[in-house]
Amino acid sequence: MARSVGRICKGFQRLGLLSKQTQLVPFTRVPVGTARTIVTLPSFLFPQPRDFSLPNPSWGSEMTRMYEHYESQCEVETEGGQKQKGPWRRLPSYNRLLKYATGGVYLSKMIQSEARLFTRNIRNPGAAFEYVLFINKEEQKCVCILQAGHLLEGPPGHVHGGAIATMIDTVTGTHATFLSGPVMTANLNINYRRPIPLGGTVLLESSLEKKEGRKTFITCRVTSTDGSKLHTETSALFLSITASHLLGG
Amino acid sequence: MARSVGRICKGFQRLGLLSKQTQLVPFTRVPVGTARTIVTLPSFLFPQPRDFSLPNPSWGSEMTRMYEHYESQCEVETEGGQKQKGPWRRLPSYNRLLKYATGGVYLSKMIQSEARLFTRNIRNPGAAFEYVLFINKEEQKCVCILQAGHLLEGPPGHVHGGAIATMIDTVTGTHATFLSGPVMTANLNINYRRPIPLGGTVLLESSLEKKEGRKTFITCRVTSTDGSKLHTETSALFLSITASHLLGG
Repeated sequence: MARSVGRICKGFQRLGLLSKQTQLVPFTRVPVGTARTIVTLPSFLFPQPRDFSLPNPSWGSEMTRMYEHYESQCEVETEGGQKQKGPWRRLPSYNRLLKYATGGVYLSKMIQSEARLFTRNIRNPGAAFEYVLFINKEEQKCVCILQAGHLLEGPPGHVHGGAIATMIDTVTGTHATFLSGPVMTANLNINYRRPIPLGGTVLLESSLEKKEGRKTFITCRVTSTDGSKLHTETSALFLSITASHLLGG
Repeated sequence: MARSVGRICKGFQRLGLLSKQTQLVPFTRVPVGTARTIVTLPSFLFPQPRDFSLPNPSWGSEMTRMYEHYESQCEVETEGGQKQKGPWRRLPSYNRLLKYATGGVYLSKMIQSEARLFTRNIRNPGAAFEYVLFINKEEQKCVCILQAGHLLEGPPGHVHGGAIATMIDTVTGTHATFLSGPVMTANLNINYRRPIPLGGTVLLESSLEKKEGRKTFITCRVTSTDGSKLHTETSALFLSITASHLLGG
């Protein structure tokens, strides 16, 4: 059991850190040298998972324009014509965390083989959450472009407050994980200023406020893509975690 | 346009108030005397919508036991053997608010015919949110029994913080609407104390704290069904709304 929990945490950590060494790929592609417990099976059994953060035909012009704005800053050209990394990095996004993490074969058996990430549990493009995250290491910022589909309704014609909270938790949680390693949400304090129309595209901007020991404080604003309309303001607190937290200790 | 907005608000108000006159039924069943603008069409064109708050085979023993506990208090027997209303009332739940509200024929044309309530956007029983709300008018309380399906994953093997926030917004929002008429969420301050295992059943208890003018303050606790484990504590603020709020004014 302890060994299995260790694997869960290892997988979670690898997912969470999102560093160079923890690229989210099918487990058969992870070099044996870096993860010795992995069973190597023929790769055709494990096709490349769908990266939900890439453009699809459901994306409207606003979503596409914002995506291209940040994507163009992920790789920039020097004066000499060479390409190099830019200030922003796009984060890939999958609907099944464990399958594609190191140790996924153990994790999926132990937990729930059918489990899917809440924000990616509907595959129909454009129907629910269409979103992509970009992170800026130097500025310690994370942004998310969200196109809210028709299955996210709360008040008539508008996005459910819970769907907005879900995206805020996702963006600030990803940001906190990037900054502090594996974390759990401890507090979300969300002020709803203006409803978001169903079908609309908005921008979520997450900024580091401070870090204190195990605590990471993040703020997040949801605005129209041009920044002129403020939809929500949030302060969030995340706690760095260990294995016992995931076991409900 | 103004007339259409009036209809939206009327429909929303009727949904929100949840009074005897506003039973959620297909619009063809609403008596003409109470809603003169309704077009009367043959009722076979509009089958009875599915009430998602009723038991289905995906419900586990804990979900069923809690449901029966509250359901048994919706109708009680007097000493003389007669049946009468009890302290609790089960609230029906549909996946498409507008279609079944008075004026739905206008609303669905005006807004989005494909729109579905976020918490009921997956029809597969047991896969996502299985929940039922009960309200106690005298004690000004609202409870919700939630069984969290495998499509709500956040941290490995546990429910997404956003899915929990979604249910908190749903329960406190429904409670505030019952107490104050149509409202919008203004603030959710959620403290996450202990993660909820995927597949688990929990109880959400919503209580009125106070009402001040347009403001309704609600608190909500999410616990294990026996109350021994506290998962989250929330304070929520709702503002009573008018037509202009829904139009983003």
